[in-house]
Amino acid sequence: MSEKLFDRVALIGIGLIGSSLARALRRDSPETRLVACARRSETLATVRRLELADETTDDPAVAAADADLVVIATPLSAYAEIGRRIAPVLKRGAILTDVGSVKQAVIRDLLPHVPAGVHLVPGHPIAGTEHSGPEAGFAELFRGRWCILIPLPETAAEAVGEVGRMWECVGMRVVTMSADHHDKVLAVTSHLPHLIAYTIVGTATDLEDSLKSEVIEFSASGFRDFTRIAASDPVMWRDVFLNNREAVLEILQRFTEDLTALQRAIRWGEGDKLQDLFTRTRAIRRSIIEAKQA
Amino acid sequence: MSEKLFDRVALIGIGLIGSSLARALRRDSPETRLVACARRSETLATVRRLELADETTDDPAVAAADADLVVIATPLSAYAEIGRRIAPVLKRGAILTDVGSVKQAVIRDLLPHVPAGVHLVPGHPIAGTEHSGPEAGFAELFRGRWCILIPLPETAAEAVGEVGRMWECVGMRVVTMSADHHDKVLAVTSHLPHLIAYTIVGTATDLEDSLKSEVIEFSASGFRDFTRIAASDPVMWRDVFLNNREAVLEILQRFTEDLTALQRAIRWGEGDKLQDLFTRTRAIRRSIIEAKQA
Repeated sequence: MSEKLFDRVALIGIGLIGSSLARALRRDSPETRLVACARRSETLATVRRLELADETTDDPAVAAADADLVVIATPLSAYAEIGRRIAPVLKRGAILTDVGSVKQAVIRDLLPHVPAGVHLVPGHPIAGTEHSGPEAGFAELFRGRWCILIPLPETAAEAVGEVGRMWECVGMRVVTMSADHHDKVLAVTSHLPHLIAYTIVGTATDLEDSLKSEVIEFSASGFRDFTRIAASDPVMWRDVFLNNREAVLEILQRFTEDLTALQRAIRWGEGDKLQDLFTRTRAIRRSIIEAKQA
Repeated sequence: MSEKLFDRVALIGIGLIGSSLARALRRDSPETRLVACARRSETLATVRRLELADETTDDPAVAAADADLVVIATPLSAYAEIGRRIAPVLKRGAILTDVGSVKQAVIRDLLPHVPAGVHLVPGHPIAGTEHSGPEAGFAELFRGRWCILIPLPETAAEAVGEVGRMWECVGMRVVTMSADHHDKVLAVTSHLPHLIAYTIVGTATDLEDSLKSEVIEFSASGFRDFTRIAASDPVMWRDVFLNNREAVLEILQRFTEDLTALQRAIRWGEGDKLQDLFTRTRAIRRSIIEAKQA
């Protein structure tokens, strides 16, 4: 599909997701003018070298001025400050969206800054790899994956539709839900798995050296899959846990109870309990394969 | 490489690992006569249909009689009974090996049955997928992966060498270590990751239905990797946990302590602690990539 979605798009933050979107828009909406904003001059130099944008700046307000669409794609801890800085320059009718992994905190941090006549459409394209930075991005990242948009009472339905069309144009399937529900679903599917993977890899790094080197050598038997997840961007993930605290602690509590029950079954040799659980979890895998998400 | 490794090999248990070894031996040692043994007649019919062996039987003693090499590739809970049944027929000079994921328990269950003049070489080819059964096997499964062999004081070095040559012939890198050390390393790299994956997928299956269906739909963000691991064979894994109880409980205790510390850091908003850990775990991933196990 080649159609102009927006005249001018500002990408504030140009890491894995921002740069992948830049590449996809270059391909699918070549007439859209792209402005990339990053704090570090090395990042902006990389963006220019890779020709990911028409303009680069380290000032969010410069990027956002005149933009029809502003996409925030930084770690969550930067949102409030970015909102404060771009608020005075956002033009009437502009759409402000984001790609953050948590949605209630995004609304908390951005909505107070959004001026009248500007549409806030919080979004979350569920796509990624364990790599980060503008060189790690690729246009195909979004293909076939889900993008969740959060329609707010304050926001015109047309604005949600326009953001949705952009993500569809780069290959995503778009769905809407409430911020609260989003944060609960993602706590289970993404935040808890990452927390667990970080923990288990951390536990392994604290082992005595003789054991540690062999854990690395013989990692192919399950551990390796966790290390891939635990290689994800540290700052982004710090911010996810700090900003989805309640939903993460709630599901973590359930997980810990279940793990304790399993620990007890192992200690007391209750093979039936183990086999029952392991048979149930196999069925979930089949559901995912049927949902074509495997 | 095409050379005759053994005249007659008995494969007792012909699931993912046994059938993959059968396929690899067919290709790499075509003059070796293969006998496959399974309890269920459906499994033996599949073996005949796929032409994985020259002979099939449901009697381990029939399979083991006259074999130069007997490979046990069943769940661990079947070992003691198989040892008891094949002991009277094992010929002098024969080698008895296995592919089990735990090694101290295998020695405990098999060694008392091994007659004088027969060599026990416990082994563990570290290779697998989440699929099981003879149809899931493939000859390339072992390529580039590690095989751990356990030399026992009772066993001739030549016997260890011959088993090692077979695994090298089908593409593996062979290393030796003590059973105790093996069980500790695998508790970290394989058994704990599987236990965690089973638990988290179990936690998700207990969610209220509205949340559960969306967890399946949006599984691509971390959860999916866990469901693959948690789809592994239930009986095999039940036996692993029951037979490596002490090493699994020890590493699980460390993991739980680390997870509790992380939970506390999230609750109290200690972002530095989170970021420090997430940065350390990223380095482990690099070690694994450098060790060419990624």
